[in-house]
Amino acid sequence: MTLVVTGVFRVPPENLQALHPHMAAVVMTSRAERGCLDYAYAEDLLDPGLIRVVERWTDQAALDAHAIAPHMDAWKTAREALGFHGRDLTIFEVTAERAL
Amino acid sequence: MTLVVTGVFRVPPENLQALHPHMAAVVMTSRAERGCLDYAYAEDLLDPGLIRVVERWTDQAALDAHAIAPHMDAWKTAREALGFHGRDLTIFEVTAERAL
Repeated sequence: MTLVVTGVFRVPPENLQALHPHMAAVVMTSRAERGCLDYAYAEDLLDPGLIRVVERWTDQAALDAHAIAPHMDAWKTAREALGFHGRDLTIFEVTAERAL
Repeated sequence: MTLVVTGVFRVPPENLQALHPHMAAVVMTSRAERGCLDYAYAEDLLDPGLIRVVERWTDQAALDAHAIAPHMDAWKTAREALGFHGRDLTIFEVTAERAL
């Protein structure tokens, strides 16, 4: 069953530039993981510092492997040092998809 | 069945400021529509001008009503004048959700 993950986290807007290379690394490395169909971070256009997360995974095993991937440790260390907070992500189990 | 919509569209980065009030209007008005659980536009952190869309709706009827809501016509007119392109959205039918 395909999984879609959406949600948010917050960073201090003044730290966004410092966080950018770390976010680029986690996005690009995650996209290369087995079972990753999509992985993106985007800043909400109405709420500076609110980062919108969109992920898609082939299955739960792929998402479980991502959670313990070594590159995620580097990201967690970097983000904690730069004011990351308010993480709120939801996993959606998808049974069908179609173009809108 | 809850529906999650994710996807992208593109705007010329130099037009983002001019598009901002139009995007704010469509986001806030859509959030107030019956059956809208979430509606957000966010700029990809690695790809300027790539706008990430995340929506959640209670059911297909709510999404159908949104598609023909009068405020969407104003948005379509504004965006066409400002270089909107590359719209690519997918509807995901969701049967279960849980916190990540």
